[in-house]
Amino acid sequence: MNERQCIGVVGGLGPYAGLDLVRKIFDRTRADHDQDHLPVMLYSFPGDIPVRPEFLLGLTRENPGEAIGDIMARMAEAGATIIGMPCNTAHSPRILDAALERLAATGRRVRFVHIIDAAVAHMLRMCAPGSRVGLMCTVATLRTRLYQDALEQAGLVPVIPDDEGCARVQDAISNREYGIKASSHPVSPEARDILCQAARGLAEKGVEAILLGCTEIPLALTESSLFGVPVVDATSVLAQALIRACDPEKLRFPE
Amino acid sequence: MNERQCIGVVGGLGPYAGLDLVRKIFDRTRADHDQDHLPVMLYSFPGDIPVRPEFLLGLTRENPGEAIGDIMARMAEAGATIIGMPCNTAHSPRILDAALERLAATGRRVRFVHIIDAAVAHMLRMCAPGSRVGLMCTVATLRTRLYQDALEQAGLVPVIPDDEGCARVQDAISNREYGIKASSHPVSPEARDILCQAARGLAEKGVEAILLGCTEIPLALTESSLFGVPVVDATSVLAQALIRACDPEKLRFPE
Repeated sequence: MNERQCIGVVGGLGPYAGLDLVRKIFDRTRADHDQDHLPVMLYSFPGDIPVRPEFLLGLTRENPGEAIGDIMARMAEAGATIIGMPCNTAHSPRILDAALERLAATGRRVRFVHIIDAAVAHMLRMCAPGSRVGLMCTVATLRTRLYQDALEQAGLVPVIPDDEGCARVQDAISNREYGIKASSHPVSPEARDILCQAARGLAEKGVEAILLGCTEIPLALTESSLFGVPVVDATSVLAQALIRACDPEKLRFPE
Repeated sequence: MNERQCIGVVGGLGPYAGLDLVRKIFDRTRADHDQDHLPVMLYSFPGDIPVRPEFLLGLTRENPGEAIGDIMARMAEAGATIIGMPCNTAHSPRILDAALERLAATGRRVRFVHIIDAAVAHMLRMCAPGSRVGLMCTVATLRTRLYQDALEQAGLVPVIPDDEGCARVQDAISNREYGIKASSHPVSPEARDILCQAARGLAEKGVEAILLGCTEIPLALTESSLFGVPVVDATSVLAQALIRACDPEKLRFPE
């Protein structure tokens, strides 16, 4: 391994999703003892980052990409060479472009590993061309067509819940009482039930696989298959892509 | 909250213990949504840090305190104002003094929150003077009498397993096949069984509480009581102390 490689994780969106990515990096690293693990830094500064969906849905003009870019720049200055961000919604170009512009201004050579690209490439390895892929996302991620466009460009067919189902998935994530962002450890039974119902609905629509395209969802749904359909968690795919970018030989169970 | 406060966690000793501390900081923070959480940075650079017990037991002269101090200094330069280290063994003065000297050389004002001090203060709040406190630690932590001396100075009576029991606890932590450092997620049944037996042995010796004085142990023993005896996990106590140092009003369920 190039000794100076270091994975930087933009945490805080939300905090537990940041931890979940770091844990998945550790879990997927070939390591028998401490010293075998890869260098990872996590910056979890949630108070600095304005809400993402509200910006994308036009409810505020404060672009969270600025704060995210500042965090990336701070990590780059501190030695991160490969950066990942466990938040699909924040990969919307209006947010991500602002962040990456700020990162580029540091002049540091940093590789940004894109969660949507990594997840869609994974689905392509897993599913035959033309396959129907079930998608569970925030409303903002769906409205900006982040995954739908990427899946269609890859020759796959995105299948999403109906409008009410999408709203319920969003509720499971962000409800102030029982949503995952309000209670991640443990996740509330209500949030899990809603997400299970959404997964069942997608399975009934005859999808080949279900992609969890919001990094809060795998905090509630940890199964590798549900209702007979394989479940792919974008956070896990990002963890693998980050390990591969850092040192491919360290990847445990490569596909 | 002073906006510039930021908690820095020295991870990597081992990696999962670092994550466990960050998770416990999140769990114990009053927060209804992302933005309520405190700023936390985790540097998990396990490859940089030589093994601790071997140094303390005289098997190598390479003091891990140098590398730990470099990591603390990097976090301080990057904005950490309060630092915690989830590794009891690394709090042995020969290691910690070298690290704190390196941190002080940065000239940054940083508060280091000491896990042994925090844990012993917690035991004093919980147990009457003169109480017998069961202790589960690495052999190196026991040999350097980190906890025994601190508990005795606080007027408490440390109770440890017999020599064979202590060696078995060490084995549960560091065995290359089934030890927690080799497999933390999930922990192996063997490691958990050994630690449960040690806890039972301490309970049978009539202790008031059991203190888990190695940050790997709570990855295997997550119960708040075992065999009728309350279990205190030094990582949780450190998490609370870090929150209190950063912003006391953010502490959920303060004692």
